[in-house]
Amino acid sequence: MLAHRLIERKRDGGRLDNGEWRALVMAYAAGHVPDYQMSAFLMACFLRGLDRAETAALTDAMLNSGVRFDLSSLGKPRLDKHSIGGVGDKVSLVLAPVVSVLGIAVPMVSGRGLGHTGGTLDKLESIPGFRTDLTLAEAREQLEAIGCALMGQTSEIAPADRKLYALRDATATVESIPLIASSIMSKKLAEDLTGLVIDIKRGSGAFLTTLEQEIELATEMISLGESHGCPVVAVFTAMDRPLGRACGNALEVEEAIAALKGEGPDDLVEVTTALSVEMLMMAGLTPSREAARAAVLDTIASGRAADQFRRIIERQGGNPNVLDDPSLLPQAAECELFTAQRAGFVQKVEPRAIGRGIIELGGGRSTMEDPVDPAVGFVITAKPGDWVEAGEPLASVYARDRAGIERGRGALRKSITIGDEAEPPLPLVSHRVTKAGVEELA
Amino acid sequence: MLAHRLIERKRDGGRLDNGEWRALVMAYAAGHVPDYQMSAFLMACFLRGLDRAETAALTDAMLNSGVRFDLSSLGKPRLDKHSIGGVGDKVSLVLAPVVSVLGIAVPMVSGRGLGHTGGTLDKLESIPGFRTDLTLAEAREQLEAIGCALMGQTSEIAPADRKLYALRDATATVESIPLIASSIMSKKLAEDLTGLVIDIKRGSGAFLTTLEQEIELATEMISLGESHGCPVVAVFTAMDRPLGRACGNALEVEEAIAALKGEGPDDLVEVTTALSVEMLMMAGLTPSREAARAAVLDTIASGRAADQFRRIIERQGGNPNVLDDPSLLPQAAECELFTAQRAGFVQKVEPRAIGRGIIELGGGRSTMEDPVDPAVGFVITAKPGDWVEAGEPLASVYARDRAGIERGRGALRKSITIGDEAEPPLPLVSHRVTKAGVEELA
Repeated sequence: MLAHRLIERKRDGGRLDNGEWRALVMAYAAGHVPDYQMSAFLMACFLRGLDRAETAALTDAMLNSGVRFDLSSLGKPRLDKHSIGGVGDKVSLVLAPVVSVLGIAVPMVSGRGLGHTGGTLDKLESIPGFRTDLTLAEAREQLEAIGCALMGQTSEIAPADRKLYALRDATATVESIPLIASSIMSKKLAEDLTGLVIDIKRGSGAFLTTLEQEIELATEMISLGESHGCPVVAVFTAMDRPLGRACGNALEVEEAIAALKGEGPDDLVEVTTALSVEMLMMAGLTPSREAARAAVLDTIASGRAADQFRRIIERQGGNPNVLDDPSLLPQAAECELFTAQRAGFVQKVEPRAIGRGIIELGGGRSTMEDPVDPAVGFVITAKPGDWVEAGEPLASVYARDRAGIERGRGALRKSITIGDEAEPPLPLVSHRVTKAGVEELA
Repeated sequence: MLAHRLIERKRDGGRLDNGEWRALVMAYAAGHVPDYQMSAFLMACFLRGLDRAETAALTDAMLNSGVRFDLSSLGKPRLDKHSIGGVGDKVSLVLAPVVSVLGIAVPMVSGRGLGHTGGTLDKLESIPGFRTDLTLAEAREQLEAIGCALMGQTSEIAPADRKLYALRDATATVESIPLIASSIMSKKLAEDLTGLVIDIKRGSGAFLTTLEQEIELATEMISLGESHGCPVVAVFTAMDRPLGRACGNALEVEEAIAALKGEGPDDLVEVTTALSVEMLMMAGLTPSREAARAAVLDTIASGRAADQFRRIIERQGGNPNVLDDPSLLPQAAECELFTAQRAGFVQKVEPRAIGRGIIELGGGRSTMEDPVDPAVGFVITAKPGDWVEAGEPLASVYARDRAGIERGRGALRKSITIGDEAEPPLPLVSHRVTKAGVEELA
């Protein structure tokens, strides 16, 4: 009867108190509330909303459904970065080595790709042998040894969130700001962090569609962090086009390695640097943002960041030689250039079409059970604003076979628009939100 | 993927077309759409609403999920009455014999009690031996023989509605006007009717709470009937107090028998007559409302209505001697008077408290699986507006044991209010809604 009463209340626009959230989430996690009641409740939450105290109570309930790291004995700042889903977003693979060699412990729990966005775990697992299923004990040991562990959400961390997330995914109740914020924060707070940086994606490839919603999500997560003693800073970055050039798991690892070696692409390095600077400032490890920026770029130029990634790969069972020889990564059987049909300005490189194209190539998931082909994807060299001549290469398709090449070309045709006028893309890094408020950067 | 897309659309305030409703309802009935997706969809329907065409499409889809009577060969008008849930509402038991002896075929498919309201099937089954699980063939044969069959929703009639209703009941998605209207009409239209009268309850004991909602439900059902060639008239009756005096299955059968013999409480006879008049006028069997009224009262005064009920009971396996000797009905072990604590006007006899009291006595259901004790309940002689002296009897409690008597007394204390001022109750029969519009009667 509990569930029925709470569904009814939320349906009618009422609120649940802390004890009710805890009881409902625990009963659901234990299997005492059936999926069909919970999904009706989630839809009522989606449409009626949660107030800030309810979002905090839900986060707490999910956090407390599992175990939490206790990393206080590491004796150094512990920070993580989380991104709200994008295409071509391999920032974590560059950022984690960079900030961890600068003295930040990074206990990074990542997810898999779903829908049109990729996932860090899938990218890492394209490195031969790389294990992401670390236990809490293994992760802890690795954090002590090298200051960084890249892992998946174990069954021990926020199991109620895992179960709820799967249900939301099946019942069209994902895109709710309080539900997104509480889901992310229930996992991040289990990492026992002293600070968290959130990368909120903007533009047509992002989950949220208005600046208002993005600020609301940032504010919600900052508030959830504050109430748990974990300062949060949000940075808004562009997702009206893919980040970097590579889109697809192994291709993105290769690009991340290039960035760690100082071979760029600029946009990837810029976003990674902006987020790393926030982490270093929160950790109190650098006296100024300029000093932080210089420190980040120096870890790359000196090769220390690349060495740290080598250590992480080795420690987690992967083949560290991929740093020197990217051809050790899975390779697609077929590769073909995609060229401009006409001269003009590149107006759009639509990330959703690219993300869906990766799924069609077998490199992404429609359901959590789908296997992923790490080798397939795109390398897109054209950027919005570029002038291109007819016949000039815009991208390459990497596929399993000829049929895949054709599907990939179809996705590129949908994604890339060329026209007479240049359309200004979104600024790469546009806003910074802290508990003090919103700061426009560009 | 179909269900996910349709949930998303309804969630965002969109609409489904006829084919989509049909596909979704069929897939759900066949088990291809899981309960947890359907319940999220139902909550989205509850909160976003359905337009009239969608309500018609949902009704059609549920109607067509099962078989339908074909009663055209009966060669006479076929009408039914449906009531939107009340306490002490035993109208069907009086009305069906009355109108069927006057030449209307009554293929009445009724439900069981759930929540605070009673159900006709539970009442009938308190008659020793009475079978409500008639097959369509049995019901048809009985309609040919005696013009009336009182039965439950077989698994053949609108099975999609059965499954959806059980899910709505568990997920707090019952009280939605389009969902209520389509659920009722999918069953009633399966009866192959030439007319239908709806008794819409008003007041604190009713499901709906405002006159606006009641008119909306009436209008929705009239529209659904019209689009299927079945004229519908709605009559609004009072449910700010129980109807009649008896509340509880066997006690209500006893009161219905008294009414059929001309000994009935006035309010029960008045509501039964008002609804019967509508049916006779729709059937074209009487030249005027006055003539219809006289015909109804004559079936009672002449004993023909009581004889018809005897025939129905006999035909459905029940003991017809209950008409002459009501002590053949199940009897409660304990009975006790409940008297007024003070002198004053009876201000309220709250039906919900009585309905919940019956559940506490074991005479109603919290879940569809609960067994029902037919003997327990209340006979409440006090009516709102009556002046009572301190110590004057207001009601009797019928219970299984002493503990039940105490629970029953508690329910009566909650239900009956006595004060210095008389509070006017709602008019017994207040509105009549047809496709021509709303007519205020009192």
